[in-house]
Amino acid sequence: MNIIPQPSTLATQVVDAIRSVVGSDSAVLHEPRFNGNEWKYLKECLDSTFVSSVGKFVGRFESDLADYTRVNHVVAVVNGTSALHIALQLAGVKTDDEVLIPAMTFVATANAVRYCGATPHFVDSEERTLGVDPQALREYLQDVTETRKGQCFNKTTGRVIRAIVPMHTFGHPVDIDGVLAVAQDFHLVLVEDAAESLGSTYQGSHMGTFGLVGALSFNGNKVITTGGGGAIITNDSVLAKHAKHLTTTAKVPHRWDYVHDRTGYNYRLPNINAALGCAQLELLPSFLEEKRRLYECYQKAFAKISQLLIFSEPKDCRSNYWLQTLMLDDFSADQKDAILAATNDAGLQTRPVWMLMHHLDPYLDCPKMELPVAESLSQRLINLPSSVHMEIEGVR
Amino acid sequence: MNIIPQPSTLATQVVDAIRSVVGSDSAVLHEPRFNGNEWKYLKECLDSTFVSSVGKFVGRFESDLADYTRVNHVVAVVNGTSALHIALQLAGVKTDDEVLIPAMTFVATANAVRYCGATPHFVDSEERTLGVDPQALREYLQDVTETRKGQCFNKTTGRVIRAIVPMHTFGHPVDIDGVLAVAQDFHLVLVEDAAESLGSTYQGSHMGTFGLVGALSFNGNKVITTGGGGAIITNDSVLAKHAKHLTTTAKVPHRWDYVHDRTGYNYRLPNINAALGCAQLELLPSFLEEKRRLYECYQKAFAKISQLLIFSEPKDCRSNYWLQTLMLDDFSADQKDAILAATNDAGLQTRPVWMLMHHLDPYLDCPKMELPVAESLSQRLINLPSSVHMEIEGVR
Repeated sequence: MNIIPQPSTLATQVVDAIRSVVGSDSAVLHEPRFNGNEWKYLKECLDSTFVSSVGKFVGRFESDLADYTRVNHVVAVVNGTSALHIALQLAGVKTDDEVLIPAMTFVATANAVRYCGATPHFVDSEERTLGVDPQALREYLQDVTETRKGQCFNKTTGRVIRAIVPMHTFGHPVDIDGVLAVAQDFHLVLVEDAAESLGSTYQGSHMGTFGLVGALSFNGNKVITTGGGGAIITNDSVLAKHAKHLTTTAKVPHRWDYVHDRTGYNYRLPNINAALGCAQLELLPSFLEEKRRLYECYQKAFAKISQLLIFSEPKDCRSNYWLQTLMLDDFSADQKDAILAATNDAGLQTRPVWMLMHHLDPYLDCPKMELPVAESLSQRLINLPSSVHMEIEGVR
Repeated sequence: MNIIPQPSTLATQVVDAIRSVVGSDSAVLHEPRFNGNEWKYLKECLDSTFVSSVGKFVGRFESDLADYTRVNHVVAVVNGTSALHIALQLAGVKTDDEVLIPAMTFVATANAVRYCGATPHFVDSEERTLGVDPQALREYLQDVTETRKGQCFNKTTGRVIRAIVPMHTFGHPVDIDGVLAVAQDFHLVLVEDAAESLGSTYQGSHMGTFGLVGALSFNGNKVITTGGGGAIITNDSVLAKHAKHLTTTAKVPHRWDYVHDRTGYNYRLPNINAALGCAQLELLPSFLEEKRRLYECYQKAFAKISQLLIFSEPKDCRSNYWLQTLMLDDFSADQKDAILAATNDAGLQTRPVWMLMHHLDPYLDCPKMELPVAESLSQRLINLPSSVHMEIEGVR
């Protein structure tokens, strides 16, 4: 009796391709690596007893980050969400404003808008960058907005659209020139959600430095981690001073008096988390090299599967390749769930892109443009195991 | 020629009395001590690579805290302010509500009310506890509120007064029986701001466990520290589950999908900070003993100065004596600034109580009762160096 071999499914091929890169062990989506001065600095911090809001590592982390991103000012905060919240406040976002953000983003972008009492207004993405599509956005804004007294008004809702917040998805820079032009033409403040893009550049300039202010994240799953942490980056010294003030309970400096001149926040990064950050930042260049090498391995391993591609950095950009990403073609989108199940069942952690913001209960009623590309991408993107310390088969 | 000796000023006497307790070195208000398993647990945490939102120390810290405070549920968060913010949300505080809080508190209590879109409504304190005066409050509420449909309405503003948030000042328990009775009679939810009172009890029960929900803080200046950190404590399992959900971006559990069912917060305590907390919590009983011994030393050292007293724990209470406190008599209140200057100039860090909330720019227009005791106390209280590791003269 002849046994006809089953043609291997796409899901099986994906499992095999990942295995050919990461080896036979299970692999998580992203875990940090501590192979530098982490323990030394943590110990130094503990021995100083300055583990909390005062201590030298916060200042050093801010200064090291400023050097790395070539920005004038960095204010370290407790996480990326708080960085975004304050960045929006610095941009002047207030109650009843609208803020343009991609429908395809992590929920923190939308939440931060809500914390300001404002309403997110969802924008489509482009396949080339996975970020805001400036051309489609321009056409949409021409249609639905009008300029009054130098402000952008949504003709339907009557509200001011105050700012635009592009997010650099999985570390890949958005078309920042295009977004900047839209921001300028429509009187929008540009705030960059650079939570995923530490180490990513466009024409040599670091993401997060193109707008008025940018937000970084150092959560445990990011390129470098401080446990939990984030940063506000800006070239504007007045904004930077205000950011520090807002994030440290808006306390007016005094030897002993406790005067606070506005409703501030307790968003300062503890010194012990900054100590970890200082050590991690020293390792960032080596992490970026390894992430790029991992991308190349995935490229090679998946080259023979015709129904998908491994996402590559956009033109003129250098991406940090934070999360490696597989993109299915239109005809294979219906295989997404099978691939997610097969890979996760095999101990290879993968995930789809976030559920689009306008499909989430808290944001169902928010204004939005047509979102065909984001809808399509959300059915076709899968993140692959992306840790820098994975033993790459080709390298072993 | 006879030289008549200058009578020593009150400020000089205070400097001398502090010196007789803390020795000749300079002394800060409060700095942490790490003489337990801090290094061990931090290293273990780092070696595990789980420094961020996932890891065993968060669960262990929550469980250890639950055991210590004898409460059913603990949710660890990023700081005391975020604990208060979520506690108020759990209490149902929403936009346009009013919340009763002491005028004499740290600004975080008022800020947390504002984060909910609500308005703080300021309440007087009593000299016996330094906290909310339930008798004065009862008389005030009888005057200015009325009950409609089981809710407490402010007759002047027309708004619902949703909750009351007593704060246990410097670790000393408020008259919690009195406050509980007011809360019950006026249909107010009781939320305890126990940020300063880890280790303090009333009739053997831990502060923060009397109301619907309580908030703790582990900032660097607190009895124990996690760098930055806080906790929500409650005996209600439904509320605890909701607190965990709200503080972890309201993500609905799923193997790979990113669904968030409401606007949540990124308030989880990183695992590395929890590791520090586990070690500190082991030391808490010894810290409390030393803080009580320091109080006794101050008592003795200041006994001969008639114009002031060292504040003692209220009746039926056991205080953590977080910050040692000197209370001037009415006739010596005008010496406060001279004492603050002399002590700080001598390298002995002291501070007055916080500027009262209704005097701060962001809260000038908030409703308030008459505040004679808080006004008087704010001119008469001075915190003294209170670290547990100070070399106590009497003990050396």
